[in-house]
Amino acid sequence: MIIVTKPEATADQIQHIIDRIVEWGFKTDVSRGEHRTVIGVIGDDRAIREHPIAAIPGVESVTPVLQPYKLVSREFRGNTSSVVKIGNVAIGGPEIVLMSGPCSVESKEQITAIAQDIQKAGAKILRGGAFKPRTSPYAFQGLGEDGLKLLAEARDATGLPIITEIMDTRQLEMIEKYADCLQIGARNMQNFSLLKEVGRSRLPVMLKRGLSATIKDLLMSAEYILSEGNFNVLLCERGIRTFETYTRNTLDLNAVPVLKAETHLPVVVDPTHGIGLREHIASMALAAVACGADAIMTEVHNSPELAKSDGEQALLPHEFVDLVARVRKVAEAVGRAL
Amino acid sequence: MIIVTKPEATADQIQHIIDRIVEWGFKTDVSRGEHRTVIGVIGDDRAIREHPIAAIPGVESVTPVLQPYKLVSREFRGNTSSVVKIGNVAIGGPEIVLMSGPCSVESKEQITAIAQDIQKAGAKILRGGAFKPRTSPYAFQGLGEDGLKLLAEARDATGLPIITEIMDTRQLEMIEKYADCLQIGARNMQNFSLLKEVGRSRLPVMLKRGLSATIKDLLMSAEYILSEGNFNVLLCERGIRTFETYTRNTLDLNAVPVLKAETHLPVVVDPTHGIGLREHIASMALAAVACGADAIMTEVHNSPELAKSDGEQALLPHEFVDLVARVRKVAEAVGRAL
Amino acid sequence: MIIVTKPEATADQIQHIIDRIVEWGFKTDVSRGEHRTVIGVIGDDRAIREHPIAAIPGVESVTPVLQPYKLVSREFRGNTSSVVKIGNVAIGGPEIVLMSGPCSVESKEQITAIAQDIQKAGAKILRGGAFKPRTSPYAFQGLGEDGLKLLAEARDATGLPIITEIMDTRQLEMIEKYADCLQIGARNMQNFSLLKEVGRSRLPVMLKRGLSATIKDLLMSAEYILSEGNFNVLLCERGIRTFETYTRNTLDLNAVPVLKAETHLPVVVDPTHGIGLREHIASMALAAVACGADAIMTEVHNSPELAKSDGEQALLPHEFVDLVARVRKVAEAVGRAL
Amino acid sequence: MIIVTKPEATADQIQHIIDRIVEWGFKTDVSRGEHRTVIGVIGDDRAIREHPIAAIPGVESVTPVLQPYKLVSREFRGNTSSVVKIGNVAIGGPEIVLMSGPCSVESKEQITAIAQDIQKAGAKILRGGAFKPRTSPYAFQGLGEDGLKLLAEARDATGLPIITEIMDTRQLEMIEKYADCLQIGARNMQNFSLLKEVGRSRLPVMLKRGLSATIKDLLMSAEYILSEGNFNVLLCERGIRTFETYTRNTLDLNAVPVLKAETHLPVVVDPTHGIGLREHIASMALAAVACGADAIMTEVHNSPELAKSDGEQALLPHEFVDLVARVRKVAEAVGRAL
Repeated sequence: MIIVTKPEATADQIQHIIDRIVEWGFKTDVSRGEHRTVIGVIGDDRAIREHPIAAIPGVESVTPVLQPYKLVSREFRGNTSSVVKIGNVAIGGPEIVLMSGPCSVESKEQITAIAQDIQKAGAKILRGGAFKPRTSPYAFQGLGEDGLKLLAEARDATGLPIITEIMDTRQLEMIEKYADCLQIGARNMQNFSLLKEVGRSRLPVMLKRGLSATIKDLLMSAEYILSEGNFNVLLCERGIRTFETYTRNTLDLNAVPVLKAETHLPVVVDPTHGIGLREHIASMALAAVACGADAIMTEVHNSPELAKSDGEQALLPHEFVDLVARVRKVAEAVGRAL
Repeated sequence: MIIVTKPEATADQIQHIIDRIVEWGFKTDVSRGEHRTVIGVIGDDRAIREHPIAAIPGVESVTPVLQPYKLVSREFRGNTSSVVKIGNVAIGGPEIVLMSGPCSVESKEQITAIAQDIQKAGAKILRGGAFKPRTSPYAFQGLGEDGLKLLAEARDATGLPIITEIMDTRQLEMIEKYADCLQIGARNMQNFSLLKEVGRSRLPVMLKRGLSATIKDLLMSAEYILSEGNFNVLLCERGIRTFETYTRNTLDLNAVPVLKAETHLPVVVDPTHGIGLREHIASMALAAVACGADAIMTEVHNSPELAKSDGEQALLPHEFVDLVARVRKVAEAVGRAL
Repeated sequence: MIIVTKPEATADQIQHIIDRIVEWGFKTDVSRGEHRTVIGVIGDDRAIREHPIAAIPGVESVTPVLQPYKLVSREFRGNTSSVVKIGNVAIGGPEIVLMSGPCSVESKEQITAIAQDIQKAGAKILRGGAFKPRTSPYAFQGLGEDGLKLLAEARDATGLPIITEIMDTRQLEMIEKYADCLQIGARNMQNFSLLKEVGRSRLPVMLKRGLSATIKDLLMSAEYILSEGNFNVLLCERGIRTFETYTRNTLDLNAVPVLKAETHLPVVVDPTHGIGLREHIASMALAAVACGADAIMTEVHNSPELAKSDGEQALLPHEFVDLVARVRKVAEAVGRAL
Repeated sequence: MIIVTKPEATADQIQHIIDRIVEWGFKTDVSRGEHRTVIGVIGDDRAIREHPIAAIPGVESVTPVLQPYKLVSREFRGNTSSVVKIGNVAIGGPEIVLMSGPCSVESKEQITAIAQDIQKAGAKILRGGAFKPRTSPYAFQGLGEDGLKLLAEARDATGLPIITEIMDTRQLEMIEKYADCLQIGARNMQNFSLLKEVGRSRLPVMLKRGLSATIKDLLMSAEYILSEGNFNVLLCERGIRTFETYTRNTLDLNAVPVLKAETHLPVVVDPTHGIGLREHIASMALAAVACGADAIMTEVHNSPELAKSDGEQALLPHEFVDLVARVRKVAEAVGRAL
């Protein structure tokens, strides 16, 4: 931690800053420059960070030296990548994994038919929502436990492990009975109670980046889960909110190489929500693979115009088949397989 | 709802769009222009909105005519303002209300002393967090129920009603025993399970705007609470996330007159989190009152450099006294009282 | 300047960093911590800043200690405020100044009538565009020199000094013949050729903040003008671009107290472009005055629905009269006059 | 154009709206719904757009049906792509083109050596700045005409055509003597005087997207150039400004497929400025090619730590060689060549 003092800071104020730091159990290294005095704090940045140094009179700025996360950092795993398994599917290894399925589970016929379609096309994991975080209270809120049962039946029919969203701490016990992986949605990325709860689950967790979450915020939210003991965490880039209105969100692919360098956790990209325009999802999926994503999540529906949610951005099964063929080529071009 | 078709849409596609809309129970009004066909959908926009019209082949764009919210809209209350009471303090009437207190409840001495200070200065409501949504799992997470008890004691000592944050649906029963108003924090603004839960509470709710929530998103989240039967909702502008890094957030005062025109619900402004720089909180409080805020929430601490959270942005009690005097003058200049 | 090295930086790399800094004429202060080595660079931050330190192998981050601007900083003027005169109107002193007029000069009748209306209402400076930066090449581009002549005639008729926009270095000589103050629009805030050119003008300059310019960027652009010798610069907050779509832009009033603390230059606020909604301009003008603005610029038109540009956000003359009365009260409440 | 009236709009107001539209030479189609009256305006959207319809009393909202651009639209070219030539290098055809070189031209040795390095590696166009738009007036501003001469010498030595930035309308004549392509930087994307000027040049123009420019804004700025007669325009995505601070900018690859679908103009991606982190430039280049970019611009320097600008984000020549090999594979995977 590096403290810069104000130009008008008095000698007494500077001494008081130093005293506080020593009182909190750290050492200091003071360098008096022409314009400002700089105080280096020696010790664990993450511990000192919890003290409101900026509130001490005379302090102009406080700059941390270390990142605030620890368990999720690549350094923590000796600069290697983690592989997380959903059912028997490994994510984060040489193979790129496709997760696919409808936005919402709507009926037995719908989810089973789509599961069979995507499996044939090459997907390895089935997605589908039973609890839906909708902006409007008047919109379809999901089938609840009935939806989970339908997902489990679709897994029985295809062998595909399933990932589904959890929205409330009280749902964990129920969802754990059916699902192979928990999803935390973008709007709950900083629902810290929920993060702690899934941190105590035996299931892996896919954590989606919030609409205005920095990469650092995303990593700190993942740190919550790991700090409770669950190290099976996937990070998912799914579009951030910017001023651009042509696209639904701005899929931030910059986050992919940055995350791969900062953390050992696997990185998933969701181009469906990311760009939100059906005709451009494949292009963004290719780009995601090219820059290092470990898995791609897309929405597929066999009758988008009758879907109960997000129909306008779902791919048709035959469009998904085409996407898989194109993704395979790019995967190979970057030394991965599908 | 107004549908514009693509230039290359065929007659069959256009007929199919019309058929779907009729099938869903609405009427259409078709206008064939030189470049595009425009289909007006006659009926309740909010009902038609749930169908994925944009997924129908041939559709270029879909533009709603009505806002997606209903119960929160000013039209719903015949263009009048609602007054919400916290304890016996009315918010949304002619008087501007000051809510104040520390970020976190830390000890009996701390919360009682601060409560007495702010009451003397003119605050009408005491704030203080017992459950703290912290970016880092290693940061102070609040005293929990013990904190709630200390808040209740501070209320006993001063008569100030208390507002405190709820983070988890499972906390409602406990918090209801102590608090006079529930606060939903910015990070939980779209925690829809929590919104529904507090919608069934007997307590009023202050809903803070999310960091990347549009004004419309904020109103839709409030609609969740009202739709469960709880009409005692306050909306709080507390800063959005932009590219600007000088300030902690960008307090969006534009939201104040817009909300006052769009909804009947009272509007609170939190300049502390909004700008995040202690020396400029008073300026933003004055501006908030000038443009129509009904209440101002600020953080006050009697020993900021020892605070367990947010010390760097807390006002000292004497700074708060000064702020109150300045706010009073501006309130009177715009025809309000304090 | 503070340099933090990478954890894997070798002793040779660290020595090479130190050597480079010494070679560039600065001194170093090295502090070897547990996790990172921190190198303080002693000397003028602004000079060292021009070297690409981050490009040297082994460097993890570089943090400046001083702000990159100098002439515009409040420190430079001994922590006092500058007063800039447009004609004989002083901006930055105790009186709040209203600048008003149409978006574009359209005709002699239009500009003279509006000038008389706003003068009667209390405005002190007349604005009007002769060269218009329009998003579309097919939109009205302004009357050019004819517009400038009409502005000069309106000044003759009312005595109000005039401010008008310059878009191109080649226009300076012509505009200097007519105007009392040059305006640089938001889209040209980083048109550095233009900044240098107006830096050599005898006229004062009002520099508008760019749509995605940080406060620091704005100050650096002002620094360009001052560094050429022209210290008569006004800074204008006029709305930044965020994700919010309800308002045209997001008027960032946080910038007002921040600028007043960082620079000696006067601060103008333009609520018309800032919020872009006619019915809410007055509210934002009041807020701007409450938080410390020195001047308010608003658009007024006597026939908005026939205006050649921005009609939808222009106030009618009688609405401006009302705004002035309200601004006066708030100005007095914060110890200013109008 | 579709006009929605306010719920409280009177019959007289609605008639007045219709009268104005007819007076301006358009026809109307009126549909009276339960809650709102909707007025369709029949005729050229781009012409009606110039009237301030939203300023007419009773109007709630105005929604255009057509895009505001025409010459740049893909429809204008019968849904085909344009190929733009820089010297004898075609951009927008099956081959992906690499443009490379230093940020600034610094000396004869520097520019010639780098030109030779990148040519050997596979680049087809040499970039280098002689006029530099720097945030700080104290930073290196470029060698001016001397820099242009050095660029021309490097072209003589290698045969690579050159692209260089123009910052001021007055520089056009001089730059045309040396350059093969003009570059308009992000900060000048809405310098409309400059756009018009280069619209009259015989040279092709690469237009970079502004930091807060929407895709539509970018296309409108290109429309300025085409409307003056110059159809040889390339569009360049180079990162937008968002809340994310880990990366220098947020390279918005979503813009690539969107632009390819909206316009016939070729699309260039600049990952160097886009992500701004040397170690991640190659990843973003691969992603750009995967999602459809026609050309990639990167900065290369043979001695980054001594560069006069942007050294921290320049690739070393051997890193560029590696990037080319990887780009080639991805290009082939998506059916392109290098």
